[in-house]
Amino acid sequence: MHFLLFAINLYLPVFKNGERIMMIDRLIESIKKKDAPIVVGLDPQLGFIPGFIKEAAFSEYGETLEGAAEAVWQFNKALTDAICDLVPAVKPQIAMYEQFGIPGLAAFKKTTDYCRQKGLIVIGDIKRGDIGSTSGCYAAAHLGRVTVGQKTFEPFGEDFATVNPYLGSDGVEPFIRVCREEGKGIFVLVKTSNKSSGEFQDRILTGTGDRKLYELVAEKVRDWGNDLIGQYGYSEVGAVVGATYPEEGEHIRRLLPSSYILVPGYGAQGGKGSDLKAFFNSDGLGAIVNSSRGIIAAYTAEKYSHFGERGFADAARAAVLDMKEDINGSI
Amino acid sequence: MHFLLFAINLYLPVFKNGERIMMIDRLIESIKKKDAPIVVGLDPQLGFIPGFIKEAAFSEYGETLEGAAEAVWQFNKALTDAICDLVPAVKPQIAMYEQFGIPGLAAFKKTTDYCRQKGLIVIGDIKRGDIGSTSGCYAAAHLGRVTVGQKTFEPFGEDFATVNPYLGSDGVEPFIRVCREEGKGIFVLVKTSNKSSGEFQDRILTGTGDRKLYELVAEKVRDWGNDLIGQYGYSEVGAVVGATYPEEGEHIRRLLPSSYILVPGYGAQGGKGSDLKAFFNSDGLGAIVNSSRGIIAAYTAEKYSHFGERGFADAARAAVLDMKEDINGSI
Repeated sequence: MHFLLFAINLYLPVFKNGERIMMIDRLIESIKKKDAPIVVGLDPQLGFIPGFIKEAAFSEYGETLEGAAEAVWQFNKALTDAICDLVPAVKPQIAMYEQFGIPGLAAFKKTTDYCRQKGLIVIGDIKRGDIGSTSGCYAAAHLGRVTVGQKTFEPFGEDFATVNPYLGSDGVEPFIRVCREEGKGIFVLVKTSNKSSGEFQDRILTGTGDRKLYELVAEKVRDWGNDLIGQYGYSEVGAVVGATYPEEGEHIRRLLPSSYILVPGYGAQGGKGSDLKAFFNSDGLGAIVNSSRGIIAAYTAEKYSHFGERGFADAARAAVLDMKEDINGSI
Repeated sequence: MHFLLFAINLYLPVFKNGERIMMIDRLIESIKKKDAPIVVGLDPQLGFIPGFIKEAAFSEYGETLEGAAEAVWQFNKALTDAICDLVPAVKPQIAMYEQFGIPGLAAFKKTTDYCRQKGLIVIGDIKRGDIGSTSGCYAAAHLGRVTVGQKTFEPFGEDFATVNPYLGSDGVEPFIRVCREEGKGIFVLVKTSNKSSGEFQDRILTGTGDRKLYELVAEKVRDWGNDLIGQYGYSEVGAVVGATYPEEGEHIRRLLPSSYILVPGYGAQGGKGSDLKAFFNSDGLGAIVNSSRGIIAAYTAEKYSHFGERGFADAARAAVLDMKEDINGSI
């Protein structure tokens, strides 16, 4: 029967001795193997895609959405080839693709498929969330499958997705149901990396022993994930906490001992390696740090400018190696 | 110059005496003209698309995502033809399209374009929200334009979009910037229609005079929109408040006298016409009520079953007329 499932869809979760391997376990194994609690954010902006890639794409497709999508795809492909042996995961931010309409989203799908073929775990940074039945459609689209007549399809096929909790439990539970069925995982927004994140997330709630909104969300994350714990003691339900808030990170780390924390905001947004220790547990696990621009646009930075535009992928590889050293040296 | 803009893109906001008409004004004018503060939710699920439409689509494209998307498109097209003279606006829920992957999203775009051609205002129910620069990409994708080389495109081209506020002001402001530049509007989630919406949204915040989170979000909506007020006294920045919470609706109505309220949850989710009075101002304006399944799947309800499956579009028309009577009789 497992063979049958494989026959239907190449990208189904991997089984081991007839048991499905949970996605959080696959992520942890890959982090250990590559000794890199690092995820590369594939967030391509036309502004930092090298000119020669854009020229080739535009000469084939014109200055069109298709041309932009082709440039994005070629950029991603070269980056993926350059970094896939170093990191366990990539995190494409779907907004960067959605801005180029349907062709852009097709490049998102192509990128996701390619990265999975290269053995990378794909964290879809989609920040979806809606009322229950609608969240169910998003969950099926990104982590699960949809049925058309007698056939079943995996529309986007990410391994993890980020989820917005503002609508409450019934907006998150459809994602958790799909995680359980498909061996996938989610990261719920708890304390985001942006400047205004405190505007609502840091508000103190009456009658909760002076807890803040993000703490309440963190507690829900714990509840949502407490029966989806894998063999390393971590849940399929993780949290997003910005590197720009190390104190809150330390606090959330204690609140959520069994949740992985996805940490954006390192590098370009201002988070440093020394800030990151707090996000990890004493087992050296528990967090995965994202860098986007700092890696994929490394060739535009002073430090890596000697690679030149044509060496953008090698520059990205060098930036990953430096990030690995910075983070592993800090935790 | 306006002529030039028109030449570039048929779907730009309409100008009048050289002035751009604000989208909220266009919405209000259309509500008045059609005497219908109603929006039809184009949220197609394969389960309630008539069999004959699915059979035709599957025989052309197979039981594939393309086949599903074709069925969705044909269903939407017939519904749009049947109701476009009765209502000012439609609200496609993008999750229902995203579940069918790239072909599904192409059907979303096709639906949006078709509805705008038919003179309908399109409220993209996308509930996006992210950190600033990323929200900017979503805003450009759905309400604005993107530049590729020397050319400019409107990737999805909705007129309004729904926005999730959990990340705070800097996640919403890029949408507002696009509203200002393009004469578009947004509806920010304040108090959602689902059962668990109170889990976070109803929490009382310390040091705010016992205000709840949704009240604080409502106040931000007022601030965000206070310099985007149109000729009828309403802002391009509106709020989403579920019909299922009429008391909260009444309260938010008072907090936000100059914001339009988009009210989902009527019909299938349990909201009744008599609950809706509170969402409107004394000028009879200020709210637009959404019904999705109650209209588009009307033929499956006892009351409209005499239309039969082949009469699904006529059933939807009859359901709109009944909804109009129910709501106009209540306000």
